[in-house]
Amino acid sequence: MRAVTFSAPGEVVVKEVAEPEIADARDAIVRIESSGVCGSDLHIYHGRVKIEPGFTIGHEYVGTVLAVGDDVREIAVGDRVMGCFQTACGRCFFCRRGLFHKCDHSRTFGHGATLGSLPGTQAEQALVPNADLVLRGVPEGMSDEVALFAGDVMGTAYHAVVESGMRAGDVAAVLGLGPVGLCAALLARASGAARVIAVDSVPERLAVAESFGAQGVHLTDADPRAAARDATGGRGVDVCIDAVGDPRALEIRLTRNCGTVQAVGVYAERCEVHMGLLWIKALSLRSGQANVIGHIDPVLTLLSNGVVDPSPLVTHHMSLDDAPEAYARYDRREALKILLKP
Amino acid sequence: MRAVTFSAPGEVVVKEVAEPEIADARDAIVRIESSGVCGSDLHIYHGRVKIEPGFTIGHEYVGTVLAVGDDVREIAVGDRVMGCFQTACGRCFFCRRGLFHKCDHSRTFGHGATLGSLPGTQAEQALVPNADLVLRGVPEGMSDEVALFAGDVMGTAYHAVVESGMRAGDVAAVLGLGPVGLCAALLARASGAARVIAVDSVPERLAVAESFGAQGVHLTDADPRAAARDATGGRGVDVCIDAVGDPRALEIRLTRNCGTVQAVGVYAERCEVHMGLLWIKALSLRSGQANVIGHIDPVLTLLSNGVVDPSPLVTHHMSLDDAPEAYARYDRREALKILLKP
Amino acid sequence: MRAVTFSAPGEVVVKEVAEPEIADARDAIVRIESSGVCGSDLHIYHGRVKIEPGFTIGHEYVGTVLAVGDDVREIAVGDRVMGCFQTACGRCFFCRRGLFHKCDHSRTFGHGATLGSLPGTQAEQALVPNADLVLRGVPEGMSDEVALFAGDVMGTAYHAVVESGMRAGDVAAVLGLGPVGLCAALLARASGAARVIAVDSVPERLAVAESFGAQGVHLTDADPRAAARDATGGRGVDVCIDAVGDPRALEIRLTRNCGTVQAVGVYAERCEVHMGLLWIKALSLRSGQANVIGHIDPVLTLLSNGVVDPSPLVTHHMSLDDAPEAYARYDRREALKILLKP
Amino acid sequence: MRAVTFSAPGEVVVKEVAEPEIADARDAIVRIESSGVCGSDLHIYHGRVKIEPGFTIGHEYVGTVLAVGDDVREIAVGDRVMGCFQTACGRCFFCRRGLFHKCDHSRTFGHGATLGSLPGTQAEQALVPNADLVLRGVPEGMSDEVALFAGDVMGTAYHAVVESGMRAGDVAAVLGLGPVGLCAALLARASGAARVIAVDSVPERLAVAESFGAQGVHLTDADPRAAARDATGGRGVDVCIDAVGDPRALEIRLTRNCGTVQAVGVYAERCEVHMGLLWIKALSLRSGQANVIGHIDPVLTLLSNGVVDPSPLVTHHMSLDDAPEAYARYDRREALKILLKP
Repeated sequence: MRAVTFSAPGEVVVKEVAEPEIADARDAIVRIESSGVCGSDLHIYHGRVKIEPGFTIGHEYVGTVLAVGDDVREIAVGDRVMGCFQTACGRCFFCRRGLFHKCDHSRTFGHGATLGSLPGTQAEQALVPNADLVLRGVPEGMSDEVALFAGDVMGTAYHAVVESGMRAGDVAAVLGLGPVGLCAALLARASGAARVIAVDSVPERLAVAESFGAQGVHLTDADPRAAARDATGGRGVDVCIDAVGDPRALEIRLTRNCGTVQAVGVYAERCEVHMGLLWIKALSLRSGQANVIGHIDPVLTLLSNGVVDPSPLVTHHMSLDDAPEAYARYDRREALKILLKP
Repeated sequence: MRAVTFSAPGEVVVKEVAEPEIADARDAIVRIESSGVCGSDLHIYHGRVKIEPGFTIGHEYVGTVLAVGDDVREIAVGDRVMGCFQTACGRCFFCRRGLFHKCDHSRTFGHGATLGSLPGTQAEQALVPNADLVLRGVPEGMSDEVALFAGDVMGTAYHAVVESGMRAGDVAAVLGLGPVGLCAALLARASGAARVIAVDSVPERLAVAESFGAQGVHLTDADPRAAARDATGGRGVDVCIDAVGDPRALEIRLTRNCGTVQAVGVYAERCEVHMGLLWIKALSLRSGQANVIGHIDPVLTLLSNGVVDPSPLVTHHMSLDDAPEAYARYDRREALKILLKP
Repeated sequence: MRAVTFSAPGEVVVKEVAEPEIADARDAIVRIESSGVCGSDLHIYHGRVKIEPGFTIGHEYVGTVLAVGDDVREIAVGDRVMGCFQTACGRCFFCRRGLFHKCDHSRTFGHGATLGSLPGTQAEQALVPNADLVLRGVPEGMSDEVALFAGDVMGTAYHAVVESGMRAGDVAAVLGLGPVGLCAALLARASGAARVIAVDSVPERLAVAESFGAQGVHLTDADPRAAARDATGGRGVDVCIDAVGDPRALEIRLTRNCGTVQAVGVYAERCEVHMGLLWIKALSLRSGQANVIGHIDPVLTLLSNGVVDPSPLVTHHMSLDDAPEAYARYDRREALKILLKP
Repeated sequence: MRAVTFSAPGEVVVKEVAEPEIADARDAIVRIESSGVCGSDLHIYHGRVKIEPGFTIGHEYVGTVLAVGDDVREIAVGDRVMGCFQTACGRCFFCRRGLFHKCDHSRTFGHGATLGSLPGTQAEQALVPNADLVLRGVPEGMSDEVALFAGDVMGTAYHAVVESGMRAGDVAAVLGLGPVGLCAALLARASGAARVIAVDSVPERLAVAESFGAQGVHLTDADPRAAARDATGGRGVDVCIDAVGDPRALEIRLTRNCGTVQAVGVYAERCEVHMGLLWIKALSLRSGQANVIGHIDPVLTLLSNGVVDPSPLVTHHMSLDDAPEAYARYDRREALKILLKP
């Protein structure tokens, strides 16, 4: 079958690879019908996250179940499914606490040997371990363009909003309006944020944020700190979601005393936080990858009831064979979300 | 000045009473411009809650500050304000925990000697103790019809939704669609409930619930348990808000294993809950009056940003002098919220 | 092999049954070295919980692993292990939330067809499904008398204390001083309860509670409500753990405004709670079986570090063959915990 | 009256100052019987925290009420009291959330104009604003040596342990064994920590930690990371309390994935945290001064019931007149807690 593989920094190649086979009673094989290109794929593309040349990449996917192992209960052959970007064992110290994102045996699709040697989903088929935990049926009537978000981008946004402890009536800020930041802005509004101040330096992204009910504020042409003060009687926002991974402490400066900073962006580069400022403001700073498996049910329920609709973020549909071009465009920030179809 | 006073069960009288005077450095006097008639006023009207004949009733209010004591900091003469239905001392065991609704020295407006002998707000003026804690300025541009809800009905709905631990993507039910239940349905939707099943037996109230984004389900003509099952794959709702004060265990039957029942309605009559059922379902049952003072800031922020708009619930505007007629109508369930203007 | 089986109300029989065999890749077979007789076994013994005659009973156990399926990772043949009283699938709606006690596919040892047809552990061997989740290695140096408590009684006490939200410096009450209540009193003290008022009517149990650092108060000869008031400046306890399953509302009367009642006892008989009282006191009432799987790690850590030592509760060691006599004694309340050894 | 005043870096002077007078109806005047010298006094002594020369310093105190304003309810003349190191208004945005430590009108004793110009308590008398909120009666039989800790050091330790979310059975680490760190170690053990790894480089402090039930680990002569791994099967501690204010990221390195770092030490100097490491470990980092007013009741309850006894930390009793010598000794780290008596 054909698959998108990493070749060298700045270079992905579509090539023939072996079809997956059921190896464990809890495995499933999914025929991929849509796969997304994600911001974290760019870390691989740029060579910052190292993987083996020839390894299949991609971790966002919707498709149809082709085969299941003997001990798969909740998913059957023929089901239309979406899946999470990583697997978990469901049995270890962290899984016993519901912290599936830090499972001792977690494997992430399409990230090479570092993260469990699990081939990616930008391919015609994918093997899904522990399928009952990782896959969910796509609710009737939901498009690929919506369902694909549940297993990564919207799941991450949900984690950011819910784990921040944001309450109805809070004022929130979101820094960085890539797909995760935009979904976080959309979801914060849908979860009762009275106002969301959405900060970025790309006008098109600010415009999408405005269409999602947020107040777009340009990072440099406007004044995010003044916007935060104006919205809160001078105190600063209750909750700040950092979806950019390069804070320069802005998220701390925007947030009021005793507020929460939820840092969900990947910190691929060195970055530091001033403890003195954290201390004087008595902040809580929460960080880390999202627990997408733990949150998948409410995320799908939100999507299937139309409470949030991320499909406007899908700016491009391309063929799997055009993956090299898709990555180049995404790298030039010309696209928010590209769907690849085999 | 004129004031609405309790006379006998089923009888309220508008009569002349003495104007209030500042007695403590933290007092304020408010010229009442709108006062609401509330479901808990009916408990007095029916004689179930005993108060002294001649006592001024009412506890929902918007107005303008006429005078303040020497130690009032945040409110000034001339400010347009709304206030909470009760006061708190800000210094006792419960206030030190932020549990203002159970303050050792709490006093409720318009409930006679039982609740602190604090004259009510269905009058031309009202004395407000500890004004900095109890009053808030009405945000620019907010009508009386909106502001009046913050200090009681919407504050109670907010308490119910937030204290229930409801999360975005949950499915909720609301039992009893008086003003509190309707505001709870509205606010649950605005806080990310994927669906809200709103149960009552009055068609007009079901219609308002539908206009607020909920799914109205008739208590007896339809099947609330089937609706809850259909919305949740058979499991039952994540959270059930009981705003009726007469559960007959329906709220427990609607709720899924490990779910939460938030009982916010006043249980004026005897009512019981089966522990065996609670236990087998592993439910959390949370109860009690709302902590309106503790939640007043986010409630006003929600209202001032238009996230929720309870003004459609105001079905009648009447003169303070027509209070006897207002109570009679309210008692016949012909009105959802009546505003009295002096 | 020999096993204790239910025969008829008031009658258990030790007889030969078939040895278990590995049926699933995640199964383990444990040679039982100690099995406990538990209060919930009495519900079966009395016929209140119905099970098939001839079914093997018991659900507390310590032993050595005899065999494991191909997909058991954390447990190996020869390991000394203890296990939880129930299994969970690790993959369903509830397991994804860490609510293993309400797993859609949960099975409880020794409770017949009603709870999953999983033969009990009062036998020479037991089959343990999903062994990685259900079994834990017994820490070096820990006796059977301690380890056996982790999977049921101490796990239940831990759930009660932790899920109640009790904080250091709180005053707690425990109603009912069977093994769960005594362990809850012990653990509440070890978790920072400033005082624990332990209520029962059996002098020997009150004495054990005193030896565990609690203040024993006789249910009828003394005055539990006065004791609660005296310990709290008249307010009532912060947290009340009901380990008796027959509250007669005492747990509500002992608890202060805005406090928590944690009901962990099995309500096998009809029992009711006054909602009006709950409401006026603004209580939280939390109920249900314990999430022993979710809490097993910290429970074992507490036991292995000697923070709590439940071994004084083991009042009798008997042979498996003497199970009929053991049940009769336990039924007469002559024993707190009986260990059966094959 | 005599009072200890700041004169210049490294120099405090005992001199005559005016006696305080009741200025507000909520004020009280306390005759100081014991006052403590605290680590944060050293920040003033060293000139890092700037205050006006001649300003009275000190903020830990026990004494007897000499006078009260007309609106003081819970405290009466003649009462023996202890008090918190800061005041709060009980009415602002933060107080309405129970976040008294960030009160908009907070004033800290003995910190000059920067923190509200409230004269300190190392004096013969002190004026206490909002006395009902700030002072509590000393429970019968409690010595000055115990009571003095409630309003600052033990209150801070309590905040650190409780706000960290530590649960019974967790393994904790405490970095920095000054009085706050030692009290945190003591309280963590009393709150159910299965083990506490206490890190410092002063042997005497490690010895006190051992006597408090912790495992003392020398910062450089031993290996704190290895100790954390050994205690947790290699994962790292569940909770790390940083009481030193100079982390060098050790607190992050000691803590397991999804754990919590509670930073309670004052960061007077520049210090940074690597976000990449926080992110990869999915940590929560909570910081800020303690909410001593919000926690004062359970802290006093713990002390009065003897659950924790900090009095071994009092290494010196000295006369108020010897304050210059007391500060010099404390600065040389020869003392853990010095009590000054007028």
